[in-house]
Amino acid sequence: MRKIHVIGIGAGDPEQLTLQAVRALRSTDVFFLLDKGEVKSDLTQLRRDMVDAHLPEGSYRVVEARDPERDRKAGGPAYSPAVEDWRSARAGIYERLIAEELGEDGTGAFLVWGDPALYDSTLGILEEVLARGTVAFEYDVIPGVSSVSTLVARHRTGLNRVARPVQITTGRRLAEGFPEGVDDVVVMLDAHQTFRQYAGDDIDIYWGAYLGTPDEILVSGPIAEAGPRIERVRAEARERKGWIMDTYLLRRNPGDQ
Amino acid sequence: MRKIHVIGIGAGDPEQLTLQAVRALRSTDVFFLLDKGEVKSDLTQLRRDMVDAHLPEGSYRVVEARDPERDRKAGGPAYSPAVEDWRSARAGIYERLIAEELGEDGTGAFLVWGDPALYDSTLGILEEVLARGTVAFEYDVIPGVSSVSTLVARHRTGLNRVARPVQITTGRRLAEGFPEGVDDVVVMLDAHQTFRQYAGDDIDIYWGAYLGTPDEILVSGPIAEAGPRIERVRAEARERKGWIMDTYLLRRNPGDQ
Repeated sequence: MRKIHVIGIGAGDPEQLTLQAVRALRSTDVFFLLDKGEVKSDLTQLRRDMVDAHLPEGSYRVVEARDPERDRKAGGPAYSPAVEDWRSARAGIYERLIAEELGEDGTGAFLVWGDPALYDSTLGILEEVLARGTVAFEYDVIPGVSSVSTLVARHRTGLNRVARPVQITTGRRLAEGFPEGVDDVVVMLDAHQTFRQYAGDDIDIYWGAYLGTPDEILVSGPIAEAGPRIERVRAEARERKGWIMDTYLLRRNPGDQ
Repeated sequence: MRKIHVIGIGAGDPEQLTLQAVRALRSTDVFFLLDKGEVKSDLTQLRRDMVDAHLPEGSYRVVEARDPERDRKAGGPAYSPAVEDWRSARAGIYERLIAEELGEDGTGAFLVWGDPALYDSTLGILEEVLARGTVAFEYDVIPGVSSVSTLVARHRTGLNRVARPVQITTGRRLAEGFPEGVDDVVVMLDAHQTFRQYAGDDIDIYWGAYLGTPDEILVSGPIAEAGPRIERVRAEARERKGWIMDTYLLRRNPGDQ
């Protein structure tokens, strides 16, 4: 029976690998690295370096594949269907990779940035491949240190305040309004710096980009002050590197609702 | 200058330590292990074992202290003040530990289960000690794999559904109602199995106890079916071990609101 590890590899610092993840790397024959094309090849190289650091040369194979492009223009109600089509296209690719590149008793691995549980589609895609029934495999999930945990660790703060909840959401959702019933909100996948919408409120922002890497940038403070600084720093970094991955925590003063 | 590491050590499996955490352990002279008294000495031993596994004997000291008891009878609006008193009592203990047990150039560490960012008071207490101004130190935070990430990894599911938010909250909050605007809710610190309140709704539960340890128990399914099983299994395990640490994800069918 084919085996697949879905391995959370941390937010960007190779030292964020867990001992369990290292063990899983070492039991892997074939690594599947999916490249989002465009400008993300830095990230593919980082993953190759992690594997190199823990496995002897020649003991494994790397298979790179190109992720299909997502239709990012589809907004609003069309968002989920576009994601579904994209997931389905990816499932076709994963199915072929597993069937053609992995021997019947082989062990493959997908390396997922952060934690596979947060805004990552690998588990959903593997379930879809299994449901198609053309290739059988077992899989397990190795949890990783998320970019969310890394963000707040670097800012030396917590996610929640005492006995209070925290919500993790997307830029798209935040654009629809500040979530109900919570004052601590982590925002991921925000290409539009939606925090600007809340610059008039009594909210602190804890922002970070390229977390855990040598390019890491951290900015925090009241949105009204820190926001313009983040916009400037973010634009410069994006220009310089060609891509950016960032996330932030919004912490609202409970008095201001 | 004294240095302190606040190290997230994962949910219970010693293999969830990150390489970064192991490096921090190895640079530590004095480990501060706070015991909640009662029945938690298993957990103190587990932490001692982790340290033993990565440091040569005689290269470090362990200082154990007793955490003050929290007034758990204080419910409702009194909850936060009781927590504040308790935190303040703990700050006094941490202050003494750092001042008396750590040399002026020494490095100390607090080992925190899961990730220090989630429902843990260590960072808040250290800030309070610094604010008192009697002992100076630097500190850093090493993020860890949270019990939340471990829970969903073991159930091989994600925290959020595609493009949707997830909230992390407490049993006490859940008792006040299902959170607004989210269908995926992780519940921590729930001594009362508050999920029972939602047994009539179309909600799946993914429950886990002693995550990452040899005693790990996982149960999932619709609350109406899985709930009674969880109650039984939980009561038995608690009786047998004398304590329990559990957490769960509630996933509501978005059609049912």
